[in-house]
Amino acid sequence: MSYLAAHDDRLLFLPLGGSGEIGMNLNMYGTKGKWIMVDLGMTFGDDRYPGADLVFPDVGFMEEEADDLLAIVLTHGHEDHIGAVPYLWERFKVPLYATAFTAELVRGKLAEAGLLDIVPLTIVKPHQVIDLGPFKVTYIPLAHSIAEGHGLEIETKAGRIFHTGDWKLDDGPLIGPDCPSTHLKALGDKGVLAMVGDSTNVFNAEASGSETTVRDTMLGIVKKLKQRVVITTFASNVARLETVGHIANECGRHVVLLGRSMHRVVEAARATGYLKNFPSIVSEKDADSLPKDKVIYLCTGCQGEPRAALSRIAKGDHKSLYLSKGDTVIFSSKMIPGNEVSLGYLMNDLALADINIITEKDAVIHVSGHPGRADLARMYDWVRPKVAIPVHGEARHLRRHKEFALEMGVKHALAPKNGDIIAISSDGAEVIDQAPSGRLIKDGSQIVPSNGISIVERRRLRDNGHVSVALVLGKKGRLAAEPAVMVRGLPRADNETIEDMFIDAVERFFDHVSTSRKMDDGHVEEAARIAVRRCSRNELGFNPVVDVLIFRDEDINF
Amino acid sequence: MSYLAAHDDRLLFLPLGGSGEIGMNLNMYGTKGKWIMVDLGMTFGDDRYPGADLVFPDVGFMEEEADDLLAIVLTHGHEDHIGAVPYLWERFKVPLYATAFTAELVRGKLAEAGLLDIVPLTIVKPHQVIDLGPFKVTYIPLAHSIAEGHGLEIETKAGRIFHTGDWKLDDGPLIGPDCPSTHLKALGDKGVLAMVGDSTNVFNAEASGSETTVRDTMLGIVKKLKQRVVITTFASNVARLETVGHIANECGRHVVLLGRSMHRVVEAARATGYLKNFPSIVSEKDADSLPKDKVIYLCTGCQGEPRAALSRIAKGDHKSLYLSKGDTVIFSSKMIPGNEVSLGYLMNDLALADINIITEKDAVIHVSGHPGRADLARMYDWVRPKVAIPVHGEARHLRRHKEFALEMGVKHALAPKNGDIIAISSDGAEVIDQAPSGRLIKDGSQIVPSNGISIVERRRLRDNGHVSVALVLGKKGRLAAEPAVMVRGLPRADNETIEDMFIDAVERFFDHVSTSRKMDDGHVEEAARIAVRRCSRNELGFNPVVDVLIFRDEDINF
Repeated sequence: MSYLAAHDDRLLFLPLGGSGEIGMNLNMYGTKGKWIMVDLGMTFGDDRYPGADLVFPDVGFMEEEADDLLAIVLTHGHEDHIGAVPYLWERFKVPLYATAFTAELVRGKLAEAGLLDIVPLTIVKPHQVIDLGPFKVTYIPLAHSIAEGHGLEIETKAGRIFHTGDWKLDDGPLIGPDCPSTHLKALGDKGVLAMVGDSTNVFNAEASGSETTVRDTMLGIVKKLKQRVVITTFASNVARLETVGHIANECGRHVVLLGRSMHRVVEAARATGYLKNFPSIVSEKDADSLPKDKVIYLCTGCQGEPRAALSRIAKGDHKSLYLSKGDTVIFSSKMIPGNEVSLGYLMNDLALADINIITEKDAVIHVSGHPGRADLARMYDWVRPKVAIPVHGEARHLRRHKEFALEMGVKHALAPKNGDIIAISSDGAEVIDQAPSGRLIKDGSQIVPSNGISIVERRRLRDNGHVSVALVLGKKGRLAAEPAVMVRGLPRADNETIEDMFIDAVERFFDHVSTSRKMDDGHVEEAARIAVRRCSRNELGFNPVVDVLIFRDEDINF
Repeated sequence: MSYLAAHDDRLLFLPLGGSGEIGMNLNMYGTKGKWIMVDLGMTFGDDRYPGADLVFPDVGFMEEEADDLLAIVLTHGHEDHIGAVPYLWERFKVPLYATAFTAELVRGKLAEAGLLDIVPLTIVKPHQVIDLGPFKVTYIPLAHSIAEGHGLEIETKAGRIFHTGDWKLDDGPLIGPDCPSTHLKALGDKGVLAMVGDSTNVFNAEASGSETTVRDTMLGIVKKLKQRVVITTFASNVARLETVGHIANECGRHVVLLGRSMHRVVEAARATGYLKNFPSIVSEKDADSLPKDKVIYLCTGCQGEPRAALSRIAKGDHKSLYLSKGDTVIFSSKMIPGNEVSLGYLMNDLALADINIITEKDAVIHVSGHPGRADLARMYDWVRPKVAIPVHGEARHLRRHKEFALEMGVKHALAPKNGDIIAISSDGAEVIDQAPSGRLIKDGSQIVPSNGISIVERRRLRDNGHVSVALVLGKKGRLAAEPAVMVRGLPRADNETIEDMFIDAVERFFDHVSTSRKMDDGHVEEAARIAVRRCSRNELGFNPVVDVLIFRDEDINF
């Protein structure tokens, strides 16, 4: 029996990603026996997951519930909202909904995964009502750091939800509609049971500021520059790309795009009616012959990603662009926590080459796409929900947002954790149950639990190194050949010495063991492992992973 | 022949650590055939050095020059200035110089390393002149985030150096002498050839602020708190410890120390005459019986170090302190770049337990120990060097500091890299040669190059996993037993399947190989490795490290 059958007409909310972390958003709403999924995002690996780049929410609970899942509703096209779609959609096989630009990005991903003709993807217009069983869903445009950010009005018999998605207030957003106060006030007037919303910037007291300010500031900067200009930003920020196009037009510079995702987003933006005044784009090759003051390179890699265009440029090994003294790189971006070190390497490479660096610390050349408390205050004033449920944040963000909502006069607030099954009513929000939750990783070509054996073992190999030991045992378990040993990842001046040391350790163990124990593979394996480890700890201060492979005379047929 | 013999009376400067990085400072001065070493610091490992915690400057060049090395002069007691002493001193065996508090910390390290009775350590007083061959060295007290920060006046025939060490200006430092403007102006009046100085905070335009402000702000905060208060800071910041003692006295709270380094620094500080008004310290155990508003815990772990006291407290598994809702943790510290993620985990654990968090973003409860540009400007006004050589910074810091020195009217400036051998004269500074430079790591119990085989291999194991293959080969190189295979760090639902897959891959290889190649161990090893890797790439998307161990019939004696 499905989970919801036991819950009648209650309105349930279940975050499976994004509550307790920034990244991989996945939020479920359930009522009257049906679920809808809002977003299916991914995040990027870090050193907890050595060798794995992509991380997804564990959707095991929803796989069990897939028969009752009606649709996946995508609020906007950032990776942390759509990134898992090509990897996990087949576990649900339900229709996707998105507005045109988001859909264009999703289609690109589905095409790469060979799923384009299989996945039903419906393009929705802002303010259009979508009927999804017990849910009526309406996309409400909000400014964000990508084209077509949307909140969702979700109407159910049990009450109206406003799911904000990622948002900010911007009086001059450059792309998309102006500040949506009228709609949001009207929504508040209709009555909102719960607002489920973005907590990313709750530690910032101020409003997040406007793309128009960024445009004006950056134009002032570039106008004064006489050499090459590289502007790096998040590719998906179409308003920022629009800004760069505007600056190029104003400064008589041509635009060159560097980086695969920059090309992809510009294509998607143009295909859906954006960037209409963008200057003609010059190829990397043709840019070579332009004077230094006639070109702007618009470039990926603002987080110091080692394989992105900018890192290669900074190291002087980009295939088409070689910067020299007096050129300028403008970081129209923020430093995402966790990227400080790699971004530091990048900036140091630029500094060593005497290239000028301008960051958001020097001038207002970046604004965030998430609401500071001043923005949140206006939103709560308009929407006036009975219940606030902060999402899209780490635990400390959610806790602060909850406090702030209460300060703003919201009657009930609850800071959820991934896996909390929450019943929402006008009496407040209550955690009534737990769904299994966690993380999946893309490990090679497979998708496995993030705490699975492969990751646990690779962490041990990373920290401790590895020793392979092979033994041939003859009559009465006697060593019939000198043990074979190979070592990886242990410090050594001279291969043979260290391997001989381990061979001795294993041989010494055989001198002291009874025949009956020598005849037991499990015992031999464990004891040889212990002998090598003890020797390694004493001599090298290392506790390696040791694998022991055993042949016995009866296995061998010369 | 020693390096300096060829350079007569020239004054040489050689940074071997700290120029191009923040951490592991080591600076050499050479003239008239003799060297002195200023500081011998270490830094901490990161994910470039899996499994290694400590990183040191590569001192190979100075080992060759050890006969001409007169002394190691330590400016202050931070790990990035003294941390490598117990690990590398034996390569030089020269006298150490330090002031009393620094010496106390060094003695603690030497005792742990069993070197206390071997290393000659001379305690120096501020303003005392030390004669070191062609160098006259004078310690000049400067404020810093540890007791007894010092700059060095280094007089030589070729000119006077002012080596700033780590410093700031503080009109109310709480510990140590007030702002040293008189001394520094007098130094400037005597004439300074070159100032070699701290670049850490050059991207901050402001002055760094005073410990007195921190004391007053933090007192105001703690006075209002009614439950348990934990203050975490860098243990070595004796002025900050003094502040916590003062707050405890003013608020009628007892102090409990948590963390080994907190105890060690408080001991060292008291042994050298600091913390005279510190309240009596209550043991962890006795604190249990005190009311919540009668205690301040002074605690290590402000960077989210997983094994430090605070991380254990946040997880609720500290042996003596269990915080509960409404208790407060005050971070009287900054976030060191690279620690954002681990510190985020810590703060999230606290937030989940409903514990209040106060950081430097909420109030002035931390000031830096390094000079912002406003401080640098005053310093350059006083000292008026002919040459500025920025050190103690990454490449971008050194470049910005160099520009700033020139803006301040310094005639010559040079941003060095580790390994640059620089001749300093009144005509400026010039890189005349390169010394080998790099990093060493403590790898288990050995000290090895950071780019050595152990680290390279562990990175590969970390990202790719490992497969051990053992073969028994009989006549004509025929497989005399089924290959034995063990797998580590590859994703697998079922051990046997994946290992059988690799066994098949190896056996298939043997079906297609000529006898002569089967008789060649090198060929068998390489081909079996390729067979396993190809199979793994195709089936798993992984490219593991493969070790192949071979027995031949002639090795085996049943």
